[in-house]
Amino acid sequence: MGYIEAMDKEFYYEDFEVGQQLRNRRDYTIDKESALAFAREYDPQLQHLDEEEAKASQFGALVVSGWHTAAATMRLKTETDLFKVANGLVGMGLESVRWPQPTKPGDSLRIVVTILEKRLSKSKPGFGVVKYKVETLNQRDEMVMEMVTAVLIPRRNS
Amino acid sequence: MGYIEAMDKEFYYEDFEVGQQLRNRRDYTIDKESALAFAREYDPQLQHLDEEEAKASQFGALVVSGWHTAAATMRLKTETDLFKVANGLVGMGLESVRWPQPTKPGDSLRIVVTILEKRLSKSKPGFGVVKYKVETLNQRDEMVMEMVTAVLIPRRNS
Repeated sequence: MGYIEAMDKEFYYEDFEVGQQLRNRRDYTIDKESALAFAREYDPQLQHLDEEEAKASQFGALVVSGWHTAAATMRLKTETDLFKVANGLVGMGLESVRWPQPTKPGDSLRIVVTILEKRLSKSKPGFGVVKYKVETLNQRDEMVMEMVTAVLIPRRNS
Repeated sequence: MGYIEAMDKEFYYEDFEVGQQLRNRRDYTIDKESALAFAREYDPQLQHLDEEEAKASQFGALVVSGWHTAAATMRLKTETDLFKVANGLVGMGLESVRWPQPTKPGDSLRIVVTILEKRLSKSKPGFGVVKYKVETLNQRDEMVMEMVTAVLIPRRNS
């Protein structure tokens, strides 16, 4: 299966196929300053905030909040062709999220979106349901987050 | 089942029981300025950024990014007794996340954590696994997020 190329058109349910992969256009770097600012506001745990305490933690060093990795992943998703869908995506929640290892301050992240399943919606006749996986990778190609989610996408000519 | 009261002690696996509920100490308000700042950086979609475009969207008004609601929920979790666990929690990822309705700028959020299941860990003898649900509610008692997750918590005297 190939990658969807950037195109000047709007996408519909019919444009996605199982196995297809989509990628973001630019990596996103979480520098130490923004990692600390995010953690102070949303995840004030010592492994995210205090260099010395982090050394003694299970991580052995300062690590980025998993919710910061998740927010960066959302940003990266908006830079894929998923966000060329006509009238935008309608999220249906997340089926699972894992953080196999932490993001470190200074890491540059990218994502690979893989289409897992598609079916017509029973309750919304003009829409299809597309389930996909998002893998967030750092510059060493290590996976820092894996998420499975589904969205409603309009059908063409509906 | 009662609520765990704030105490000057560290919690262990044995201190949690199925059905028990935990709450945060202070509400967390997402004002419009911080909603826009978060969306610009992490979720630059029109329903989060542009008042006029948001009116024409499925939401009918400016709404806070679901990932901002999630980050606020993490903050609220750190203000519950879950974070009095000895040596900190070890997250095992999320089993599901739903956003039944959006947070609006200016909403004040609080959470209710309910312990769903507990069992001893097979792979980590000194630990138990505690599965819990987090409901995030606004000032009108409407649920804006529901999340199910599990954590490893150390056993007492292990």
